[in-house]
Amino acid sequence: MDVRTEQGTHLLGPVLVVGAGLLGASIGLGLRNRGLDVVLSDSSPSTEAVARDIGAGRLLADAPDGGEDLLPELVVVATPPDVTARVVADALLAHPDAVVVDICSVKEAILADLTGMPGVAAHLSRYVGTHPMAGREKSGPVAARAELFTGAPWVLCAHAASAPDAVLRAESLAVDLGAVPARMSAAEHDEAVALISHLPQVVSSLVATRLQDSPVQALALAGNGLRDVTRIAASDPRLWVQIFSANAARLVDILHGVREDLNRLISTLEEPTADGARLDMAQLISEGNAGQARVPGKHGAPPDSFARLTVLVDDVPGQIAKLLTEIGGTGINVEDFRLEHSPGRQVGLAELSVLPGKRHELTESLTQRGWKVVQ
Amino acid sequence: MDVRTEQGTHLLGPVLVVGAGLLGASIGLGLRNRGLDVVLSDSSPSTEAVARDIGAGRLLADAPDGGEDLLPELVVVATPPDVTARVVADALLAHPDAVVVDICSVKEAILADLTGMPGVAAHLSRYVGTHPMAGREKSGPVAARAELFTGAPWVLCAHAASAPDAVLRAESLAVDLGAVPARMSAAEHDEAVALISHLPQVVSSLVATRLQDSPVQALALAGNGLRDVTRIAASDPRLWVQIFSANAARLVDILHGVREDLNRLISTLEEPTADGARLDMAQLISEGNAGQARVPGKHGAPPDSFARLTVLVDDVPGQIAKLLTEIGGTGINVEDFRLEHSPGRQVGLAELSVLPGKRHELTESLTQRGWKVVQ
Repeated sequence: MDVRTEQGTHLLGPVLVVGAGLLGASIGLGLRNRGLDVVLSDSSPSTEAVARDIGAGRLLADAPDGGEDLLPELVVVATPPDVTARVVADALLAHPDAVVVDICSVKEAILADLTGMPGVAAHLSRYVGTHPMAGREKSGPVAARAELFTGAPWVLCAHAASAPDAVLRAESLAVDLGAVPARMSAAEHDEAVALISHLPQVVSSLVATRLQDSPVQALALAGNGLRDVTRIAASDPRLWVQIFSANAARLVDILHGVREDLNRLISTLEEPTADGARLDMAQLISEGNAGQARVPGKHGAPPDSFARLTVLVDDVPGQIAKLLTEIGGTGINVEDFRLEHSPGRQVGLAELSVLPGKRHELTESLTQRGWKVVQ
Repeated sequence: MDVRTEQGTHLLGPVLVVGAGLLGASIGLGLRNRGLDVVLSDSSPSTEAVARDIGAGRLLADAPDGGEDLLPELVVVATPPDVTARVVADALLAHPDAVVVDICSVKEAILADLTGMPGVAAHLSRYVGTHPMAGREKSGPVAARAELFTGAPWVLCAHAASAPDAVLRAESLAVDLGAVPARMSAAEHDEAVALISHLPQVVSSLVATRLQDSPVQALALAGNGLRDVTRIAASDPRLWVQIFSANAARLVDILHGVREDLNRLISTLEEPTADGARLDMAQLISEGNAGQARVPGKHGAPPDSFARLTVLVDDVPGQIAKLLTEIGGTGINVEDFRLEHSPGRQVGLAELSVLPGKRHELTESLTQRGWKVVQ
């Protein structure tokens, strides 16, 4: 491999992207924005045509001789988890000078499959498993965007046989797309995502499932709590079945713990006046407090590192726009902005997060301009 | 009762608020803003002093003769659920001309307790159970705000013996505080909140609990999914123990269903390659999709009734302010605004929701001003 990638600087291309869904097409868009030659391939002719049409790259199918002469520097396998190992193996064999990465949400199962494939082991020095921690509830190339990975962690899982320069080239992909590389083992990665990604997905679906037959009158009372907990339940079943299957052992370990807690809570609620019942409930919620406090906020900052203030906004056209203008006019950087709303609510509460030292100044400025700052 | 409240117009006061925590103090602040005489009382001298100091009302303890001559039009019981029925009963007996409402998160248990109290039944025509669907993760009078209820649903649970004019007076309280009254039975209310409030609270805590001993490295990969699912796990254990206890039977019914789904998923994940395993997983997620789609968005609108666009924002001081200013400058009403961020991410993605007909115009305007609109 050349000095360029050994220094971990930038990709030069061409880059072959296999799988042109949300992630593959987003990678194509991002690399095209850097001027790289991106070649796309997808088992679905209509998917790859859409990806090409939005500017994610040219099609392998349109290349002379079907791309037989293509010498990619890097092959990115962005197919569904089910077929990822097979496609990685094919790419390693078809492109003997290329580094091959996949971007699948699980890493150990892919590596184990590859290791077990006859004739592939000798090529694994050029394979690096990766996982960009970015996605959307939507899928397909239509939802793709070049900036999907900007600032997000991109996990790189070098294995025992990975060549150092292959890892550097994989890292260049992450860096070129604006992501923040994070190196860890496949086992560490799979344990982490079981907890921070697959578990929330399961429980969000478990809650949302209960809403299927509920009275409309009940749902009309829902607030941000229910909305937040169920948001990711909108995700794609086909994809998640593959992710759950591929990380089943780790996920089920965590779910055993959840079931224990749930069983204890159910027993307690079945006899809510029994000795110790309240203590049991309080313990669950207190432990939840402790766990929640460990969830990092923006930029890994502790959750409480920003000060908040809330502004009352009439929900008539132009009011939110006016507030946004005037916040802008203060020149104070808003770290987060959230509208609280509720069904039937005709007035919004805009919650702003700012550095603690700026809270007073922003409150004063907005109050002077006639806004009602309520907290 | 007088013509004024029979017409359901406005309260005139005095209003006695018993319990000066987040909700009681917020009610006091809101009614004081309307110029009403609000008298506060709390079992904790320091709590009631704080509530007085922030302007939520004068103290019963400071009134001549300890308030013996006070003739409140309305008594609002805003104590913890545990003592609510007892405090309501005392208020009915102490103030024979007053309407008494409570604002507890559960309604049947309170009514049952009251009905069983000797000497109280004859006064229950003046009692109306209510529940404002508003709150915060914070508690205590320091977190109070007059606008807490603005635009939120406020459930009124008239019972068989409630006098119509008592219900009207309770409704006046909701309306005077800017809330939207919603009438239903105590049973309907308790079933609704078990599903839309207590269930999300339980599962949020169940997930957050799992995070207590997780590696920091794993948490650093967390995205908005985990943050959203665990946000309400920050809630107060003392309060929630009382809420869960008081609605235990309804909540446990729902949790039995959750446990069935969880057990099925665990069995499936224990043998992920068995016949039908994938179908079982897909079914859970698909049913979650169907339930999630029923969660109302802003103003009860269906979740997809707004068009979204995403703008890339460098996270340097002034950039978000600048974006907000320029969105304001377009005059287009923004229905929702959300910053997506991730640990270590130095660039934010601002997701704006607008009426579908305005999406193109806003995209054009922002692009012309040099913003990168990425979706």
